[in-house]
Amino acid sequence: MVTPELALMGYLPRDLLMNQGFVRRGGEMLARIAAELAGAPPLLVGVATPNPSDMGRPLFNSAVLLKDGAVGPAFHKTLLPTYDVFDEDRYFEPAHAPQILELGGWRLGISICEDVWNDRDFWKRRRYHQDPIEVLTQAGAQAIVNLSASPFTVGKQLLRQQMLGHLARKHGLPLVFVNQVGGNDDLIFDGRSSAFDAQGRLFARAKGFEEDVVVVDLAAEPLFGPDGVPSGLAEDDFEPEAEIWNALVLGVRDYARKTRFGKVLLGLSGGIDSALTAAIAADAMGPENVLGVMMPSCYSSPGSVDDSAELARHLGIRTITLPIAGIMQTYDAALEEAFRGYQSDVTEENIQSRIRGNLLMALSNKYGSLLLTTGNKSEMSVGYCTLYGDMNGGLAVIADLPKMMVYRVSRWRNRRRPDIPEAILTKAPSAELKPGQTDQDSLPPYDVLDQILELHVEQCQSAEEIIAQGFDEPTVRRVLRLVRIAEFKRKQAAPVLKVTSRAFGTGWRMPIVRQE
Amino acid sequence: MVTPELALMGYLPRDLLMNQGFVRRGGEMLARIAAELAGAPPLLVGVATPNPSDMGRPLFNSAVLLKDGAVGPAFHKTLLPTYDVFDEDRYFEPAHAPQILELGGWRLGISICEDVWNDRDFWKRRRYHQDPIEVLTQAGAQAIVNLSASPFTVGKQLLRQQMLGHLARKHGLPLVFVNQVGGNDDLIFDGRSSAFDAQGRLFARAKGFEEDVVVVDLAAEPLFGPDGVPSGLAEDDFEPEAEIWNALVLGVRDYARKTRFGKVLLGLSGGIDSALTAAIAADAMGPENVLGVMMPSCYSSPGSVDDSAELARHLGIRTITLPIAGIMQTYDAALEEAFRGYQSDVTEENIQSRIRGNLLMALSNKYGSLLLTTGNKSEMSVGYCTLYGDMNGGLAVIADLPKMMVYRVSRWRNRRRPDIPEAILTKAPSAELKPGQTDQDSLPPYDVLDQILELHVEQCQSAEEIIAQGFDEPTVRRVLRLVRIAEFKRKQAAPVLKVTSRAFGTGWRMPIVRQE
Repeated sequence: MVTPELALMGYLPRDLLMNQGFVRRGGEMLARIAAELAGAPPLLVGVATPNPSDMGRPLFNSAVLLKDGAVGPAFHKTLLPTYDVFDEDRYFEPAHAPQILELGGWRLGISICEDVWNDRDFWKRRRYHQDPIEVLTQAGAQAIVNLSASPFTVGKQLLRQQMLGHLARKHGLPLVFVNQVGGNDDLIFDGRSSAFDAQGRLFARAKGFEEDVVVVDLAAEPLFGPDGVPSGLAEDDFEPEAEIWNALVLGVRDYARKTRFGKVLLGLSGGIDSALTAAIAADAMGPENVLGVMMPSCYSSPGSVDDSAELARHLGIRTITLPIAGIMQTYDAALEEAFRGYQSDVTEENIQSRIRGNLLMALSNKYGSLLLTTGNKSEMSVGYCTLYGDMNGGLAVIADLPKMMVYRVSRWRNRRRPDIPEAILTKAPSAELKPGQTDQDSLPPYDVLDQILELHVEQCQSAEEIIAQGFDEPTVRRVLRLVRIAEFKRKQAAPVLKVTSRAFGTGWRMPIVRQE
Repeated sequence: MVTPELALMGYLPRDLLMNQGFVRRGGEMLARIAAELAGAPPLLVGVATPNPSDMGRPLFNSAVLLKDGAVGPAFHKTLLPTYDVFDEDRYFEPAHAPQILELGGWRLGISICEDVWNDRDFWKRRRYHQDPIEVLTQAGAQAIVNLSASPFTVGKQLLRQQMLGHLARKHGLPLVFVNQVGGNDDLIFDGRSSAFDAQGRLFARAKGFEEDVVVVDLAAEPLFGPDGVPSGLAEDDFEPEAEIWNALVLGVRDYARKTRFGKVLLGLSGGIDSALTAAIAADAMGPENVLGVMMPSCYSSPGSVDDSAELARHLGIRTITLPIAGIMQTYDAALEEAFRGYQSDVTEENIQSRIRGNLLMALSNKYGSLLLTTGNKSEMSVGYCTLYGDMNGGLAVIADLPKMMVYRVSRWRNRRRPDIPEAILTKAPSAELKPGQTDQDSLPPYDVLDQILELHVEQCQSAEEIIAQGFDEPTVRRVLRLVRIAEFKRKQAAPVLKVTSRAFGTGWRMPIVRQE
């Protein structure tokens, strides 16, 4: 039996690993589980173990064998990812040499996650100087076992299958990949544990986005159908919109469950972002546990409340309406003297957004419901959002989806059940914070904006490289400037469910103070 | 001439290092500076340089020699700190072997920051397996040069002097330590570049918390006074309260300057936290650039506005008063129906705090002033603060000071000039969000709380270890639980100026979702 990486502690445990009691308690739990499993087959479990030396980092990232009621040897991870959301060099000492486990007549090469991601033939550029799989193969491994906590991003499973199949084929060894499933803070793990035969053929795969147990027999010839499709694959859907939907539903559900919220609420503006977030929430929590809050002002279009109400009826979620005009007037009165002689500007728009943010948090506090943030990645990138206003919330559900992807996923969702009213899908995006406002008054068209943002945020390209691809220079420079000056907002943003190769949050570490 | 570490790019540049244009521009700047300095003495400048190999991380953390108008060889950092606020393994490949620079008849051992922090005789536990200084000494170095960006924490300079003196004495070589000065986001660099002779004696030290240029002659015998005090030391003050004061003043000044704010504002509650923050701000920005905002409610004590007004008069800062009772009433009215049947609870307190937060941000937006957050570390630890309310602001000035230290620094400040009214120093701390409230209604006494928090937050001790030192078990468990459940607030907090060994922010990376 094999668990995912660090299964006993959760991945990422982050600085909990530095708490003196945490790793000690892991050791105690190992002994207890070993005793409870005395009559069961041997178990290889992912856990952090202390580094007994007085040199190097304090811990190892290990797979520990529990067998015959006792705690057996530990196998340590060699390659420690320290990029994007990963910080393993912060905690772990690398294995000094990868080890073979002899068990049930097999010589098993034990590896942990990143250890399989550095093959010289698969990658053009390699991050590490060693290849633990090569070492294990040379030491006589007859199969490779990999304990993983490999977070979801769109399309990653197809890359994993290609890369792991290549490894198995290259070394002529069966390979078993055991992956974590579930949401932890901003990260979503998609499971899909897989097995490959010695020819590199995928022959078994666990469910995506759900817990699952898969039994494979590495000694038997795997079964393939007449079309070459293996018989041991759980159904799955690799369409990007489907993957994103399943990931976000799991991300919301697990964040709420693990922070002990049974209910969620969100503001419904009449726009596409809050509509999609509501649909995801209804699926994740059950519609009876979702509350939509409409907070019209004098600048809200007549459609905004009606469209939201129709959406809520379709989804089966409850709503409440709290007009904010009266509160706005008291702020205007309180600030009249302080603002005398100043022009009306973005300040007044922000006040409205923050009134709504206060009301949403009041309902969240009073009802014990988790507030979901509804902003998308395009907005978060250029700062088209109000800190302490519409950015309020415990979890930012779609903040790693560019606006164009918000539309794609919404249309995909409507093909399954047309809950999002057509008016919401087709109206021009607007914050409705002043008369006749639309997003395109101050931003480039979203299809252009999203392309520039992908090149800059995900691919780390500078203005020069983006312009060289044919984008309008003033537009590119303006967009990149907006990204820079919005950093202080993102620094205080809610955790963002990650679905792309680079999300705002733990994988985006920018200084606020900068000169460029 | 020697600059601090990464002087050309700022430290920490963080993920700017991943932007394709950023490192390229660094190379262009090197060439330009070399040309401009053609007639000047050689310069060793800290800069990130590309790793030309297709294996390993993409950059080196380097010291590049500019000499005779040309860009000379690069010397790379060997030990890459990846703990606390540091993430160097994320970006940099270590030097494969440290190198000697032959210059002006000297064989100079070039090292960068962390390279000097791993001596086997000085440290009981070592984080790294190599000692670059040992390697440089064995390679025939006649002096050690160290380019550093070593952030300030209280008392660290005394440790640096002890450690660097030990190194120089042990290897029998003079040593020059060149440190960054200034504030960058949450980090404050205290400068204090220093030189040690071959007997390990400190003989020159640059100013603390200010830019400075120091010329040392490694060939001459250093001068010491009759009392053994070297003649080349800038005046300095190592009293903890003085160090904290100087650090926070520099931190506020540089954050405002580098984000291009000429003015700051803050809420004045009549309590000690906002009083100390106001005094720091007045010193950092000039009192004419500081605005104090009083926002009394029906729960505010009569003293709170009077004491704040007196403080402001002493400091010479302007104030404005915005009563919030009228706004509170409109929220009550808007929420009356939604709250029907629910008891009054912390929700109503949070609404008040968020009204104040909205008003402060409105003034910040309208006036173009940076809002300073006034919460202390004890509050931030146990969540005794309101997200989107009193936590609002661009910079948290004293959020790394435990409450007892807030008092100590305030009293130290008053000994220099008694600006903080005695009433503020002696009244019982209160959030004044409901009638007769004091902090001690819901928290243990601050002297006990601060001790428990230091053991847990700074020293990573678990409940068992803290209880074993004689603290009351239910109190310890309650405090640690409060720390755990406040994580979601800290995740969205403003950057915290760091003065202790472990501040909330980039050096505190806790999951929100956790079970313990």
